[in-house]
Amino acid sequence: MTIKEQLARRAAGVETYLTGCLKDRGIPERLLASMEYSLLAGGKRLRPVLVLSWAKMLGGPDIDDAVMPFAASLECIHTYSLIHDDLPAMDDDDLRRGKPSNHKQFDEATAILAGDGLLTEAFGLMSAASIVKGLPADRVLRAILVLAKAAGAGGMVGGQAVDMEFTGRDGVPLEELRGMHAMKTGALITAACECGAILAGGNETDVDKARGFGKAIGVAFQIVDDVLDVVSDTETLGKPAGSDEAMGKSTYPALIGLERSKELAGEHIDTALTHLSGYQGEEKGFLSELARYIVDRVY
Amino acid sequence: MTIKEQLARRAAGVETYLTGCLKDRGIPERLLASMEYSLLAGGKRLRPVLVLSWAKMLGGPDIDDAVMPFAASLECIHTYSLIHDDLPAMDDDDLRRGKPSNHKQFDEATAILAGDGLLTEAFGLMSAASIVKGLPADRVLRAILVLAKAAGAGGMVGGQAVDMEFTGRDGVPLEELRGMHAMKTGALITAACECGAILAGGNETDVDKARGFGKAIGVAFQIVDDVLDVVSDTETLGKPAGSDEAMGKSTYPALIGLERSKELAGEHIDTALTHLSGYQGEEKGFLSELARYIVDRVY
Repeated sequence: MTIKEQLARRAAGVETYLTGCLKDRGIPERLLASMEYSLLAGGKRLRPVLVLSWAKMLGGPDIDDAVMPFAASLECIHTYSLIHDDLPAMDDDDLRRGKPSNHKQFDEATAILAGDGLLTEAFGLMSAASIVKGLPADRVLRAILVLAKAAGAGGMVGGQAVDMEFTGRDGVPLEELRGMHAMKTGALITAACECGAILAGGNETDVDKARGFGKAIGVAFQIVDDVLDVVSDTETLGKPAGSDEAMGKSTYPALIGLERSKELAGEHIDTALTHLSGYQGEEKGFLSELARYIVDRVY
Repeated sequence: MTIKEQLARRAAGVETYLTGCLKDRGIPERLLASMEYSLLAGGKRLRPVLVLSWAKMLGGPDIDDAVMPFAASLECIHTYSLIHDDLPAMDDDDLRRGKPSNHKQFDEATAILAGDGLLTEAFGLMSAASIVKGLPADRVLRAILVLAKAAGAGGMVGGQAVDMEFTGRDGVPLEELRGMHAMKTGALITAACECGAILAGGNETDVDKARGFGKAIGVAFQIVDDVLDVVSDTETLGKPAGSDEAMGKSTYPALIGLERSKELAGEHIDTALTHLSGYQGEEKGFLSELARYIVDRVY
């Protein structure tokens, strides 16, 4: 199986769980439709897959089922952030994954509430990993704290705030751009790996390695995203290509050029791979290939 | 001490904790200013006070310190809901607690992100009640699940969605109005009492009584809010009086009249008090007086 096929197969497992996770919760019909419209709009399910893979590498394949609600919660958080980022007051994007963005399909109020709802349900799912699935409560709580920090105002939410301050501002230095990306997209990807290690009962060295791996692929992922916005087309991206430049956004290609951007992404993947040394088996193989695949997308 | 003084004294303790709880978390300056602008804008701190009082009634006064981060998290959730409800796409309110609402003082994007940030930090604070303060992890996780359900799309967020559907619609039946309020404001007040009982290690009977008490005062609280919107003035309310009527909102006074609304609120307080039978001491006295005070505000 190619890495693309492996990823699709794992994503399908997450998809099945996501499809059921909002049912029978007393959510008003239109709000539920709006939440599911975005949550079930496809995507690589990268963050849940990372949680599951790190958990399985350290805790064995049987941990999969118990970790799933927690893994799914990361997709809820990721989805809510996309819905809110697309709002007219934010990036004002009409398209997302090739379909009308949430506020275009429904309305602005519903989109705000759908995001709020997904964020809140996410924490319910996390607690279910212990209460329903029996993972030790102290591990789950520790993972909740890691995720709340990563997704919160000192992480993803703060990164979006800084990104908005940067937009239209000329000459944002590379260091500041890196800091913003580390918060906006890096923190959640890092937390995905870290939470997988914590939930599996990994020791401090494992958790450090998971964090190091996550940070490195997070940076690479963002650089690749910037590069794709330049070299790809709207159909492939599922959102308007060239929108970063049109919005006056600081990007890696704009700051250091296209070729150096690709090189830099590759260097970060090399760093990521060093954090997998000492592990073995199927999950190590999967995580290595996944890391390389992130960069291969631009070639 | 009058109940008003007791309430103010307890609110001051919560205030002190809230003032420090967002510091040193790497939150970008303007976003932090926006979050604290709304979080520290005063208010009765009713929800945290309820968590603390139920926890102390069942767990003794020494539990106060350990429960505080969890109690504070309810104020973060309440505050985020006010910020998002005030947005132009929602209730479009320019005033909140006598000051410009968050998006008026800052901007719409910042207000959305401040709300998202407060909601996310809230769950970090909840986990800290165990990780930093040593409460048993399984109790804290159970309380997190209760709160996520109450605040989420099947609770508070869903209630706001239904409220928006009701706005401008004529002849919403009382039963549907009750259902909406039970979600929009009742769920979080109920969860406050329930979480206090859970965190203190109360048994199932205690948790049921806490839930019953919370539900009853929640309904009374909402009726009183509707009544105050009719009988009070803008200065006292800190928001435009009569705005419910202007927005075409279904309210208790509009549906059953002012006098019957006041009576009904009183009946719910009587129900609340029955759930305190069997308890004793200072906290029972406080909770009883607090329940009566909710209704006394309209006389």
